[in-house]
Amino acid sequence: ASMDSGDELRAKFMEFPHVSAPHRDLMVELLSSVETRLGSSLQPCTLPPDVQYFGNPSGSASASLQLRPGLPSSQIDLILGGWIHCKLPSGGALNITSLSAYLKPSTDAPHFLLDLIQSSPTSLVLILDLTPRKDLILHPDHLKTYYEDTQLDRHRQRLHTLPEVRPYFSPSLYVRALLSPTAILVTIDVGASETTNIEEIIRDHVGPVAKELLQFWIESCACPERHVEESERAYLAERDRIIKNTTIEVDLGSSFPRLFGQDVADRVLTVLKEHYNK
Amino acid sequence: ASMDSGDELRAKFMEFPHVSAPHRDLMVELLSSVETRLGSSLQPCTLPPDVQYFGNPSGSASASLQLRPGLPSSQIDLILGGWIHCKLPSGGALNITSLSAYLKPSTDAPHFLLDLIQSSPTSLVLILDLTPRKDLILHPDHLKTYYEDTQLDRHRQRLHTLPEVRPYFSPSLYVRALLSPTAILVTIDVGASETTNIEEIIRDHVGPVAKELLQFWIESCACPERHVEESERAYLAERDRIIKNTTIEVDLGSSFPRLFGQDVADRVLTVLKEHYNK
Repeated sequence: ASMDSGDELRAKFMEFPHVSAPHRDLMVELLSSVETRLGSSLQPCTLPPDVQYFGNPSGSASASLQLRPGLPSSQIDLILGGWIHCKLPSGGALNITSLSAYLKPSTDAPHFLLDLIQSSPTSLVLILDLTPRKDLILHPDHLKTYYEDTQLDRHRQRLHTLPEVRPYFSPSLYVRALLSPTAILVTIDVGASETTNIEEIIRDHVGPVAKELLQFWIESCACPERHVEESERAYLAERDRIIKNTTIEVDLGSSFPRLFGQDVADRVLTVLKEHYNK
Repeated sequence: ASMDSGDELRAKFMEFPHVSAPHRDLMVELLSSVETRLGSSLQPCTLPPDVQYFGNPSGSASASLQLRPGLPSSQIDLILGGWIHCKLPSGGALNITSLSAYLKPSTDAPHFLLDLIQSSPTSLVLILDLTPRKDLILHPDHLKTYYEDTQLDRHRQRLHTLPEVRPYFSPSLYVRALLSPTAILVTIDVGASETTNIEEIIRDHVGPVAKELLQFWIESCACPERHVEESERAYLAERDRIIKNTTIEVDLGSSFPRLFGQDVADRVLTVLKEHYNK
């Protein structure tokens, strides 16, 4: 069998080889939920092998991406999972794992976004949100349906009861503007604590919240059919186009050249943009 | 002279009789800046006397409001200043002072919002923002012009260097959605500190930031003329209509009946809504 067959690349992706066991278990469990519940609505990963797995010339950084477009009949636009690993000059490593899920303009339900960014053994940045599809001021019904009536803020409040959790402010004002009013945007720092470690917090607190939010997104956002008028579809399509392209630029465009060199970054970002704008 | 002449009611408003000297000095200075720079574009206060100053039947709560509409030729829609004082059963008092300034749809520059909420001698909630007029995702130029190119986030960052300052999360998801990505939304708590008090923090930190932001709003938002297309004016007018009405409902509608009784609350809110929708 070829070293770059789809199955082998998917297996390599699912290994999450550089993160702790609870972190890997969480990502595998989230991806398995997507697979079980939504797999029949998704195409296999359509990325070329050298975008599914790649590294930098010196071998200090590696990454794996899996992008599965929704079937034409499905409400799912695409689901992107990924991990990035990079050895730091300090001797430590930067590890990022992420899962984003975009819906089509045939529904106005929120997208899903998860990023776990670990740049030291004792701290973690968590970004977890159902990102709004509409301006929540001009569309108060959108705020009510998905964020207020669902009491979505309780998940954020629950994490904030932990003494290790502090609010995190993204340096990107675009990212702050993108997120919902119930977005979980936190730094988890155990410092020199000998009684708590990040792995336990992922297992006992981050994991349950992430699983519950993904479950809610699958059952209440991705699956139910919504009636969306033609003019509204055009609005959603345009707003989503901006979201997808700006998110790539802000998120990956700013870090990939530094992590992987300009050539690899250009190759990967070009392919991702093509898939995002299909 | 009648006890309820406009001048006397304005003087009573400007007294801010229940807050500390630095808090009062700050409010008077902010209102004087508005007066000096924008006074010639504003009508006198148009509220009836019993809405300019009122209390609850038992006398434990009192408030003063001043609303000045912009002249027809001006870009200013209205400016509302206010203070609210309420004795608490615990023996302390709740004191709120605020300044909001709304622009007309002839410009798309941000509105101005300031709330200082003090419910104990040792803590203060500060809400200070230039609230966006447009969906920042669909209008990235709005984000760039007013928030990124102006480095507006530096004011928030500056306050967050103080150990007494923590992020504040409004219980209202609408308020969170209304605010810009650079909004200052903080709790300032000096606790049992013997070296710092709230008055010093207002004088040395909150004051300079509030004055700088108001100055920026006056010079770069309220005054410069912008070219706004007809279709965009309709968009701004509708969004502003929602903002003004929802802000009254969420902010005053939820607290006024409790503080002043239903009769007084109804009278004041009805008049304010009329003026907001003229």
